[in-house]
Amino acid sequence: MALIVHKYGGTSMGSTERIALVAKRVAKWARAGHKMVVVPSAMSGETNRLLALAKELAPAKPAEAYNRELDMLASTGEQASSALLAIALQAEGLEAVSYAGWQVAIKTNSAYTKARIESIDDKKVRADLDSGRVVIVTGFQGVDDLGNITTLGRGGSDTSAVAVAAALKADECLIYTDVDGVYTTDPRVVPEARRLHTVSFEEMLEMASMGSKVLQIRSVEFAGKYKVKMRVLSSFTPWDIDINEEAVSGTLITFEEDEDMEQAVVSGIAFNRDEAKISVLGVPDTPGIAYKIVGAVADANIEIDMIIQNVSKEGKTDFSFTVHRNDFAKAVDLLNTQVIGTLGAKEVVGDAKICKVSIVGIGMRSHVGIASKMFSCLAQEGINIQMISTSEIKTSVVIDEKYMELAVRALHKVFGLDQVAA
Amino acid sequence: MALIVHKYGGTSMGSTERIALVAKRVAKWARAGHKMVVVPSAMSGETNRLLALAKELAPAKPAEAYNRELDMLASTGEQASSALLAIALQAEGLEAVSYAGWQVAIKTNSAYTKARIESIDDKKVRADLDSGRVVIVTGFQGVDDLGNITTLGRGGSDTSAVAVAAALKADECLIYTDVDGVYTTDPRVVPEARRLHTVSFEEMLEMASMGSKVLQIRSVEFAGKYKVKMRVLSSFTPWDIDINEEAVSGTLITFEEDEDMEQAVVSGIAFNRDEAKISVLGVPDTPGIAYKIVGAVADANIEIDMIIQNVSKEGKTDFSFTVHRNDFAKAVDLLNTQVIGTLGAKEVVGDAKICKVSIVGIGMRSHVGIASKMFSCLAQEGINIQMISTSEIKTSVVIDEKYMELAVRALHKVFGLDQVAA
Repeated sequence: MALIVHKYGGTSMGSTERIALVAKRVAKWARAGHKMVVVPSAMSGETNRLLALAKELAPAKPAEAYNRELDMLASTGEQASSALLAIALQAEGLEAVSYAGWQVAIKTNSAYTKARIESIDDKKVRADLDSGRVVIVTGFQGVDDLGNITTLGRGGSDTSAVAVAAALKADECLIYTDVDGVYTTDPRVVPEARRLHTVSFEEMLEMASMGSKVLQIRSVEFAGKYKVKMRVLSSFTPWDIDINEEAVSGTLITFEEDEDMEQAVVSGIAFNRDEAKISVLGVPDTPGIAYKIVGAVADANIEIDMIIQNVSKEGKTDFSFTVHRNDFAKAVDLLNTQVIGTLGAKEVVGDAKICKVSIVGIGMRSHVGIASKMFSCLAQEGINIQMISTSEIKTSVVIDEKYMELAVRALHKVFGLDQVAA
Repeated sequence: MALIVHKYGGTSMGSTERIALVAKRVAKWARAGHKMVVVPSAMSGETNRLLALAKELAPAKPAEAYNRELDMLASTGEQASSALLAIALQAEGLEAVSYAGWQVAIKTNSAYTKARIESIDDKKVRADLDSGRVVIVTGFQGVDDLGNITTLGRGGSDTSAVAVAAALKADECLIYTDVDGVYTTDPRVVPEARRLHTVSFEEMLEMASMGSKVLQIRSVEFAGKYKVKMRVLSSFTPWDIDINEEAVSGTLITFEEDEDMEQAVVSGIAFNRDEAKISVLGVPDTPGIAYKIVGAVADANIEIDMIIQNVSKEGKTDFSFTVHRNDFAKAVDLLNTQVIGTLGAKEVVGDAKICKVSIVGIGMRSHVGIASKMFSCLAQEGINIQMISTSEIKTSVVIDEKYMELAVRALHKVFGLDQVAA
């Protein structure tokens, strides 16, 4: 008998029929003797519907006071779906109770629309579990010290589930979603892509392009920090699948290297076609240039991904970075008008038609020659590499976006990811 | 400069366009120098939508635990509309903040789906008003001592508004709805029906059939208890109507007889065609029969309206009452199977094709001959009276439902309600 947290996404909660199926699945686990806590998202489309109403009323958005009201508004979606799930569980013959974030309480800071969880009081939930109830905790929301409702930002229900699992010291946190696990790469690009039975926490973080479609990255960080055993699995398997089979399905995210891990050096190929590269050329190589460039861009609320600065020649250097493609024009404009003059740099050039492809694997730490195998593979396919960046367990390259599928397929094959692990 | 509470019903909050108009109206009052508190209902249709989802999941409803979740669910409608109104007010350039019932806090007992307000903490709202904010308080909901969300039942937002007005000692509580006041009778039946500029609290209570379409009766009782000045008016007048004109529009509900009241003896004609009459005939006239009959019916959760028992003849009496037409068959069946035998009564007879027509007027207290004028009027129209019941300020008759319009029109004329008051 274990304490298990289930998290169900918006698609899984998308209709009363689906909610009834979620209730049957949770009931199966409860009847197998487990103490059950469930964290549901809002019914799919509900959060967007609510935010669209707000947008109609306030096309130009004011500051903090507006964000406070957005959270009041958006948090109702999860409260409603939580109550509906409690009702569905009661209809299944179980005792069930739902709690809004403030009722638990899930305490957060006051950063409306992107709040961070600070603490979770486990007393109420524990008491209910001990008296045999299934407890539903609304995802995505919390309450600040002044009693204002906050939300955790998009995908925040994953983080809620992991945080609740951490607070309750749950044996496992199962994230039910519309895919059946984490794959070696996107199966839509490489049909031979395989589901990973386990993936390490670090790999999951690095595989943002794969990972972000499956799990909110913040929830993985949270799970790593509190060592929460976390599994991603599908809510579209039959609800009455044998519980022992279900308990080992999907992909387990692991935090300890001595766990039973697959032995591949490279675990997956990640990619991202939403990026654009920008270079500031001919920058006088003096202390503080990185800050002046990156700081100006960050101050404009533009997120920067890769940053590359090569050694300088004749006192000048070239500074390159990638941003989201939507921010490309804004960033180039900003650099031209506000930065390049102050820096005494020559010019700003950029390209929005690029993509980033990465090989990720915790095994890379102890293996040499992985990066060169990647470069050789791309060269054989005639693909020119525009930028390179590496970390301990990842090597990323920026290439022309038209080569993306070709590169991903070739790398997937070269690193043997289409073979079942020994 | 006054402290004013506005309450807007679901139709007034029915779309973002309408919410924007509510914001403009509230802003007009705020800019005129008034401290403003607004209590909105859920957007029209929203509560029904949510409860329909619950019903799909739990066709046969369990007990208390189910009602708790219904309140978690239904309360989200008002929370969302409150946040949207705050956003609309911010877009109008005002500072505005919304509070859920638990945030205020509006404390209630734990009678889920029909909770009663026990206390309201005015500190937070007062502090916001003092710092120049418009405060939006969600209607319809509260929180019990254990931190569970409760709702006040259908139409509860009127009660919320009056309770908030009472707690804040507001100068006036304006209930904006889709009609422009209380009429002498239903204008659809009598085209000459006039809007009353004032109506007494007691008359409003007695005119349930007119009143319940306009105001939730509980809110009127509440207003009477706490002497809240309450006005019913239309939210469909242009929002930029002159504020002095708007402030005297609609119908004011008065609680003191020395206020400037219209002098008519009869203020209005109320009617209700949803009733059915039931008579238990030949009941041995012994102590306790009323309780045995009424108690059995009430235990089956059937609400009883009029009750009439005439003097007995030869130790037997006839006992009559009216119920909602939907409960007619159930009540007759219940009396036949469970009551009539125990009582030793002769038989149960009933008629579902009746209606109740009442004349209501606080002036009746001090005028004689009002009831006889009513009976004579009906006799002249050839309408047979089946039952009569009177209170201090109301005389009700039960007649064949086919005469309803005829009776209401004749009475409206006979009591001079189509004439403008002196």
